[in-house]
Amino acid sequence: MHEQLIKHLRTGDARALARAISFVENEASGYDEILLSLRRDSSATVIGVTGPPGAGKSTIVDGMIGELLKEQGRIAVLCVDPSSPFNLGAVLGDRIRMSEWYTHPNVFIRSLATRGSVGGLSPKIIEVTDLLRSCGFDNIIVETVGVGQSEIEIAALADITVVVLVPESGDEVQTMKAGLMEIADIFVINKSDRPDADLFEKNLQLLLAPAFGKRSREVPVIRTIATEKKGIPELVHRIKNDVRPGVNEERRIALLTEKAWQLMAKQRMREVDKLELRRRVEKGLQNHNLNIYSLVADYK
Amino acid sequence: MHEQLIKHLRTGDARALARAISFVENEASGYDEILLSLRRDSSATVIGVTGPPGAGKSTIVDGMIGELLKEQGRIAVLCVDPSSPFNLGAVLGDRIRMSEWYTHPNVFIRSLATRGSVGGLSPKIIEVTDLLRSCGFDNIIVETVGVGQSEIEIAALADITVVVLVPESGDEVQTMKAGLMEIADIFVINKSDRPDADLFEKNLQLLLAPAFGKRSREVPVIRTIATEKKGIPELVHRIKNDVRPGVNEERRIALLTEKAWQLMAKQRMREVDKLELRRRVEKGLQNHNLNIYSLVADYK
Repeated sequence: MHEQLIKHLRTGDARALARAISFVENEASGYDEILLSLRRDSSATVIGVTGPPGAGKSTIVDGMIGELLKEQGRIAVLCVDPSSPFNLGAVLGDRIRMSEWYTHPNVFIRSLATRGSVGGLSPKIIEVTDLLRSCGFDNIIVETVGVGQSEIEIAALADITVVVLVPESGDEVQTMKAGLMEIADIFVINKSDRPDADLFEKNLQLLLAPAFGKRSREVPVIRTIATEKKGIPELVHRIKNDVRPGVNEERRIALLTEKAWQLMAKQRMREVDKLELRRRVEKGLQNHNLNIYSLVADYK
Repeated sequence: MHEQLIKHLRTGDARALARAISFVENEASGYDEILLSLRRDSSATVIGVTGPPGAGKSTIVDGMIGELLKEQGRIAVLCVDPSSPFNLGAVLGDRIRMSEWYTHPNVFIRSLATRGSVGGLSPKIIEVTDLLRSCGFDNIIVETVGVGQSEIEIAALADITVVVLVPESGDEVQTMKAGLMEIADIFVINKSDRPDADLFEKNLQLLLAPAFGKRSREVPVIRTIATEKKGIPELVHRIKNDVRPGVNEERRIALLTEKAWQLMAKQRMREVDKLELRRRVEKGLQNHNLNIYSLVADYK
């Protein structure tokens, strides 16, 4: 059904890619055919860029594109924005900020909505990254907002993960964003001209000390001022230097196993009528005798 | 198998409850028997308390317990902390802050770990809340950290949802935490003695204006200084006044349908050997020809 599209995909055609992503994102008829045809290209480098909101991730990605373009090669950027009533605004914001590259022939930029998926990641982020991986890109940048657990998924997906912080991120590093510490292959302190940058870097280095962090490898910390493109060449150099195939293999196997499990569960649940399930839940609530565990045990 | 335990649960026995929660949390042998025996008690009020880290949620919950105890009745508190390497510390922190009530005969407090579940909610939060609902509590407070999508789940679970913010939450309200705006039945501005509290309240009210927020109902904003127990009586009064059965019914039906669907999927996936699935993923990655979509399609 999508033979033509799949053929165009293999030549790296941008319009075919855009169409294929839409098919996959919307689960449009035949989207599974596209996914079944993918050939994982292990020469592509997937770079995860994550961090709290407002850290300047998009500006850094923008700078990275320019830097990466100095080499030969094609670049894909996937922005994953959290689902929210204000989502559209955020997406447009990214687009405007990255507009310099929107028309460049070797740059492909796409935003994915998250559509209320639990964890803030798009339910199709793995599929779309797999798609990009099979379309001959040299570098694939996946930008996500690091909240909750989504950053752990992105780290499993990426060959190398850059965590972007700002000097004001102190509280976040201490509390919620502890997951960020675990997954970072490289730290960036953006807006590093702010007066509290030195103190923040010192504290970050303390947190990264082996005794505390239990990590054997050294995690570099790079200071940037993304709006002035300062530190971006160093960051890209470091990414190219530090990326080693297989470094995140354990996380990747776990993530892909989980994904495969979920796909299989979805397949096996195909014949379950969700509307009927909903009706029974609703009736149970109305009758004040709902027990979803027995509802499930007795179903059909 | 758990007949005795189930009988004790119905009498509201705290030790039986603690054991039952552990059974459910760890999926220990016979835990499904416990779940199947639950009788949903619709006279219990489930109060969700959520908001960004550092907003003072635990201190507010602490104050609420004291206020609610002035009436007759039993209170359960469920704290759900995000999974992180520092989780233990956070849990202990909550316990220390709430220690005043740990020994009170009419207060039952329990922390749930989230164990890396996507979305930052414990995978068993619905089960444990159902358990508490069937043990004769008058008020059940469920405290979660509002990051990503977890707050939407808590809103579906709760009869009324309190979103706790601080004057510094401006950025969060504007960007990531937009979901919080949607689910709040009551807003609390904690630490409201800070100089920027007035401006923050003004901005929050602007965001809540019908034209922007598309909401028909009015959402009250209550100012507190939780450390001095200021505003807590007003908050509890408002909760008692505003809670109406059925107000979140649509969200609750959707959440419970999704939960039932997931339980059913898990049941149907019981015979799939996850280790074997993992082996195939690993082998595919090693051979550079992994396509999880065809792996799933061809499985067995």
